[in-house]
Amino acid sequence: MAAALDTDEIESRLAELNKSRGKAWQWSIVDHKLHAEFRFPDFVEAFSFMTASALIAERMNHHPEWFNVYNRVQIDLTTHDAGGLTRLDFELATAMSDAAAR
Amino acid sequence: MAAALDTDEIESRLAELNKSRGKAWQWSIVDHKLHAEFRFPDFVEAFSFMTASALIAERMNHHPEWFNVYNRVQIDLTTHDAGGLTRLDFELATAMSDAAAR
Repeated sequence: MAAALDTDEIESRLAELNKSRGKAWQWSIVDHKLHAEFRFPDFVEAFSFMTASALIAERMNHHPEWFNVYNRVQIDLTTHDAGGLTRLDFELATAMSDAAAR
Repeated sequence: MAAALDTDEIESRLAELNKSRGKAWQWSIVDHKLHAEFRFPDFVEAFSFMTASALIAERMNHHPEWFNVYNRVQIDLTTHDAGGLTRLDFELATAMSDAAAR
């Protein structure tokens, strides 16, 4: 099982995740979860992103908490089994950001 | 544009929607929205339901607010343009219930 990361590790991985990504695709820590709010041109684009992310999540066996309305997708990542954030959350966030940038 | 339904119409359509559906697939009115919480065996089943629903929603040009975590999908339907519930919400709810039952 992936181990919970400490505060320093989280900050360093968060900086790495957000580096060289535009303002619209930044992640932050909200309520101890890795959080992002992405906006797309329309529902088709938003759900296409969700579909790509769903395939990645299922392959990783690590799934997001997410909310969608029309062109907006709010995402929260955490590792319940570890009681905090793990490398899995950052790996999924990176893959989701890559999918959003396509 | 679809017109907002009055309380009587909402109650009658809600009864119709829930009639002959099992307990796990019931809709209710929460915060003036048509609300349901569906559980599936796993993420693949949950997201398959979401994909079917997304295609229906896009075809109707009427989209849900929804939240997913693993096998759970929470859905809220309303018609923002009409400032309340319209026949579109009940039509989408019916189609989503049919998709869930597959």
